[in-house]
Amino acid sequence: MRPSGRAPDQMRSITMTPRFSRHAEGSCLVAFGDTHVLVTASVEERVPPFLRGKGSGWVTAEYGMLPRATHTRGSREAAKGKQSGRTQEIQRLIGRSLRAVTDLKALGERQITLDCDVLQADGGTRTAAISGAWVALRLALDGIHAATPFAADPLAVHVAAVSCGVFEGTPVLDLDYPEDSNAGTDGNFVLTSTGGLVEVQATAEGEPYDEETLLRLLRLARIGCAEIFSCQRAATGR
Amino acid sequence: MRPSGRAPDQMRSITMTPRFSRHAEGSCLVAFGDTHVLVTASVEERVPPFLRGKGSGWVTAEYGMLPRATHTRGSREAAKGKQSGRTQEIQRLIGRSLRAVTDLKALGERQITLDCDVLQADGGTRTAAISGAWVALRLALDGIHAATPFAADPLAVHVAAVSCGVFEGTPVLDLDYPEDSNAGTDGNFVLTSTGGLVEVQATAEGEPYDEETLLRLLRLARIGCAEIFSCQRAATGR
Amino acid sequence: MRPSGRAPDQMRSITMTPRFSRHAEGSCLVAFGDTHVLVTASVEERVPPFLRGKGSGWVTAEYGMLPRATHTRGSREAAKGKQSGRTQEIQRLIGRSLRAVTDLKALGERQITLDCDVLQADGGTRTAAISGAWVALRLALDGIHAATPFAADPLAVHVAAVSCGVFEGTPVLDLDYPEDSNAGTDGNFVLTSTGGLVEVQATAEGEPYDEETLLRLLRLARIGCAEIFSCQRAATGR
Amino acid sequence: MRPSGRAPDQMRSITMTPRFSRHAEGSCLVAFGDTHVLVTASVEERVPPFLRGKGSGWVTAEYGMLPRATHTRGSREAAKGKQSGRTQEIQRLIGRSLRAVTDLKALGERQITLDCDVLQADGGTRTAAISGAWVALRLALDGIHAATPFAADPLAVHVAAVSCGVFEGTPVLDLDYPEDSNAGTDGNFVLTSTGGLVEVQATAEGEPYDEETLLRLLRLARIGCAEIFSCQRAATGR
Amino acid sequence: MRPSGRAPDQMRSITMTPRFSRHAEGSCLVAFGDTHVLVTASVEERVPPFLRGKGSGWVTAEYGMLPRATHTRGSREAAKGKQSGRTQEIQRLIGRSLRAVTDLKALGERQITLDCDVLQADGGTRTAAISGAWVALRLALDGIHAATPFAADPLAVHVAAVSCGVFEGTPVLDLDYPEDSNAGTDGNFVLTSTGGLVEVQATAEGEPYDEETLLRLLRLARIGCAEIFSCQRAATGR
Amino acid sequence: MRPSGRAPDQMRSITMTPRFSRHAEGSCLVAFGDTHVLVTASVEERVPPFLRGKGSGWVTAEYGMLPRATHTRGSREAAKGKQSGRTQEIQRLIGRSLRAVTDLKALGERQITLDCDVLQADGGTRTAAISGAWVALRLALDGIHAATPFAADPLAVHVAAVSCGVFEGTPVLDLDYPEDSNAGTDGNFVLTSTGGLVEVQATAEGEPYDEETLLRLLRLARIGCAEIFSCQRAATGR
Repeated sequence: MRPSGRAPDQMRSITMTPRFSRHAEGSCLVAFGDTHVLVTASVEERVPPFLRGKGSGWVTAEYGMLPRATHTRGSREAAKGKQSGRTQEIQRLIGRSLRAVTDLKALGERQITLDCDVLQADGGTRTAAISGAWVALRLALDGIHAATPFAADPLAVHVAAVSCGVFEGTPVLDLDYPEDSNAGTDGNFVLTSTGGLVEVQATAEGEPYDEETLLRLLRLARIGCAEIFSCQRAATGR
Repeated sequence: MRPSGRAPDQMRSITMTPRFSRHAEGSCLVAFGDTHVLVTASVEERVPPFLRGKGSGWVTAEYGMLPRATHTRGSREAAKGKQSGRTQEIQRLIGRSLRAVTDLKALGERQITLDCDVLQADGGTRTAAISGAWVALRLALDGIHAATPFAADPLAVHVAAVSCGVFEGTPVLDLDYPEDSNAGTDGNFVLTSTGGLVEVQATAEGEPYDEETLLRLLRLARIGCAEIFSCQRAATGR
Repeated sequence: MRPSGRAPDQMRSITMTPRFSRHAEGSCLVAFGDTHVLVTASVEERVPPFLRGKGSGWVTAEYGMLPRATHTRGSREAAKGKQSGRTQEIQRLIGRSLRAVTDLKALGERQITLDCDVLQADGGTRTAAISGAWVALRLALDGIHAATPFAADPLAVHVAAVSCGVFEGTPVLDLDYPEDSNAGTDGNFVLTSTGGLVEVQATAEGEPYDEETLLRLLRLARIGCAEIFSCQRAATGR
Repeated sequence: MRPSGRAPDQMRSITMTPRFSRHAEGSCLVAFGDTHVLVTASVEERVPPFLRGKGSGWVTAEYGMLPRATHTRGSREAAKGKQSGRTQEIQRLIGRSLRAVTDLKALGERQITLDCDVLQADGGTRTAAISGAWVALRLALDGIHAATPFAADPLAVHVAAVSCGVFEGTPVLDLDYPEDSNAGTDGNFVLTSTGGLVEVQATAEGEPYDEETLLRLLRLARIGCAEIFSCQRAATGR
Repeated sequence: MRPSGRAPDQMRSITMTPRFSRHAEGSCLVAFGDTHVLVTASVEERVPPFLRGKGSGWVTAEYGMLPRATHTRGSREAAKGKQSGRTQEIQRLIGRSLRAVTDLKALGERQITLDCDVLQADGGTRTAAISGAWVALRLALDGIHAATPFAADPLAVHVAAVSCGVFEGTPVLDLDYPEDSNAGTDGNFVLTSTGGLVEVQATAEGEPYDEETLLRLLRLARIGCAEIFSCQRAATGR
Repeated sequence: MRPSGRAPDQMRSITMTPRFSRHAEGSCLVAFGDTHVLVTASVEERVPPFLRGKGSGWVTAEYGMLPRATHTRGSREAAKGKQSGRTQEIQRLIGRSLRAVTDLKALGERQITLDCDVLQADGGTRTAAISGAWVALRLALDGIHAATPFAADPLAVHVAAVSCGVFEGTPVLDLDYPEDSNAGTDGNFVLTSTGGLVEVQATAEGEPYDEETLLRLLRLARIGCAEIFSCQRAATGR
């Protein structure tokens, strides 16, 4: 029995509020249950130095968590003067995941920065962030397209992410914090709407796991991502 | 005529959503028009080193702004590795303002940290933060009191803040961003519900101002704070 | 009775030693009693990026305190690797105050940096710094003018600052450290020689204060600044 | 055809030089072809604060790369004043991998730090580091055991890691730099000598990959790790 | 001919103003010509962790330069967030030099910090700092002794320092900035009043130098230090 | 008797392994007994800003120590976020020493960075680094020369360094760690193959020393450097 009473292959309730922010070119407040992440997409008409003059754009991400998003207050990274290894690892994953489904040539020489800020955390912040970032990016691209149409859509497929793990011996979908903090094996799966794998990360927290478990978790991830893709479509009309 | 069409002594629409955050002991999402600040109050049963064993508590504040809270994206302070002078100045003001109405002896040996994070900015973020912080602090104290009653209420009066300034020659209340960025004189006023002044900061952005202007701005501030006190009462029942 | 035996509206002895430093384009060692601040003005024939090509100059300030300027040694900010919030707040105030009386267009595309370093502290370091910075800036401008005359004087009026506060129930002028560390209300007033207000900052350290007190402190500040303006004239012949 | 002429399931030449360092309690210079990593294990008879008094030990890792380990000189992280996100991600992975096969209770209240410094890089530095770290840790534990025998061996199984990826359409084992920088899919696999999976990380650098590819890469990883386990045994006699 | 018209073995005019600072336990404003350094000695009744409980005291130094001590303004180390290599090298030298003549056992379990801040620079700031630091330390020890007499004087001999170098082919004493910035060989010599050598540092800026030159510079240093010892005696009566 | 059994004027065994690193333009693994330093020379076809367009090249050095190069593990400077004063002092000395024998005009507008990383430490790491850096630099220059011959050799003479000190009353050559940590006087001498002095640094750790001792140490240094020059010739054929 999961602490939340969910079935093993049941996602938490997902909500995606597009255009949550007034100033950003694209934005989405995404909730996976009690995990709430605000994602904004900021468009700049310039690219990082390593891409200048190459006719290619860039998509990058930054991640942060409000100090009291969690059960006990964490220290503010800006006050400590550096981002933790965890923060850097997550923002690298988000950026990589969105670039995997973006045609950077079609985007043209501009950079889009996806800021993912966790307002409230209950497990799965990085997967909610990736899933919501697709919406924010989609809306930002729609805005660019409305002003100066793209020859080809730079974001032809969706990307979504979900965590799966083994909780008390049972593979379950979309771990919340009570599950995540006790999971034996914990994985993050980033999938495309065409069924492709963008990133698989599965870690044994205690005992090593076997191949069968890995595949079982992947199958759960496919179920969850299908639901997320629906929500993304509802939020963007795409 | 103000850009928003407001009368000179008219506040923007104020909303205060208490208990916005699930984990914090007290919280409030405060909006002054398009300025949205999430304030959480975190209680810790320990005090900073300089207060240990003195039978007194402490109230402190931290302030941050999401990178895309503003019209153009600002860089993330955690990524830059330090808080700006502006950030530090604001969080010092917030902490000072709340301590001014808190009986630290009555609070007992505990620290309450008020995290004020700007989700969206349209001028007046520090004054919204102070006003919402009172609500978050009130709720946190109510929670402590419910478990272990205070002999005396550590927060007997309200505190609120509002900005006032001279826009195109006219003293106006509660500047929004278009006004703030063009104001000749710009002031922040922190007042108590008993009519006392906690902090007055008034700066000439262009021409120096005169005493009459200072008093006129203060009078506007009293009008605005009266309205904020009402909202605080509605949000907390106090 | 004030600890120093001064009357409530009596400044400490002020001395201003112009051209204290051999290398700087302008400089002044200013003393308000035992508070000694060395101010240098450094002229650079370039402006910060945000002003380039706009035909306008810039005036900025930095502030520091020698580790043993105070009763007990403070740690060196360079060794700690960051400036405190207090330092940043003060240097922002100094820069703002001097810019308020400088015609940046008339200055032309050059930057003047005012370094204010406290050699000895006994309260009121920021107000002494502002007052002395005017002298250093004046001398630097005179030097520029001697070589390449300005069409219009970029510094047509004086600016000075003084702290006032309520000590043991009595409003007093120019607080020294024993007063400052026990003041009920503490304010800094930045005024021009034409009677204008550039900045008012008044903070309740304990009980909130009332409007009458604010005005009483402002009246004391006018008395103090009049005396400072005289010293500035004596030091610069302007 | 691979640039090195290796068969798809062929590892580079592996050498493990145990006790390379004179001072460390355990050490190993590990080479996967031209990738050379020096690993030292340092034993301290104390644990981090979060473990004090809990009867459990800790294993952690740090990772670094000499500035000219690579084709072009990288900047020195100590001079830049911070570790990159990549560095932090790798050292977290190394620590997690070794903890996965260490019985921290059996280790007792001591901490072992595994410093992994890349002297020369040609792809696969993190997997070489994990594989060599097992040897350094094993030797350090043998040294502790010789002085004060463990009741149970804290390191009953081996752990090894290898990278696998898809190069020019073919899944290949143990990518060197020319392969790694052009791989379509790139994975790191951390396995135990009992066949368990500790960590799987597989990333699509270009096109998303499919489940069949993931499994094929995993099968290659098993081949590579078998060879690494042999080298570990030869180096430690365990 | 030296730019200043001095003879090769002639020091600049030396002045030492003892008790320049009101708050420090010992202080000295030392001038070697236009090089002005303010040194304060701060006494703390505790020692650094590595000395606790060992019955020994500690003497340490910190060094800084005001941004406009020099011909052109340097950036403020506190603002840059780190001390330069030059600053660290100098403060290590000052600390080492003073410890060389201090009996740390006789000092007892207290630490004395010597803050050396350059108000104006014209070459030789580190040697002026060492020479003035002796005076500040002496005065601080005299103050301790007056309250609680030492069994043995912890500072039985003097230490002084001077720079010597080869300017336009001629070995000269006490280089000023125009000489220092053009010297072929440049040395700093730290000597005791009993004729001992504490530190010799001689660097070829251009051509290597020979043993004869080293000895000639050392002989000049003895001449200069004799004069500095006289000034120290005049300033302290010791 | 020296702890190692060496005669007072006997160096430790020196080995210099040229071309130790695959990627660097020049490299050398240098060992003075158990002190092992890896030096790489990296060539860049650009110079620092202060030299641009002046027709002159630059040689600079960076120094680091692996955390467990020493008897007890030191913290990693990259993790602490700053280089120690000792590190900066050493890398400045290395750079200065190599520049002293390099004709920067003949080098042309390119920069060579000498990275000196201590793999294992047993005293004398900075002197081994300087001695090995000459070999790495020589090899890098030979490589440039082979592609585009220099009109004149930018490195016409050798430079080497050795430490000498007074151990238990006897002046000895090339101190190892047990000697270094107990030496009364400790010096580093940087000499050229033509007999010139580049840098002399001699420090009294306890009692001041006399001129006779300084000269005796210098004579030992000449003996040691002669041996190092031979090793450099054997390693480079120059």
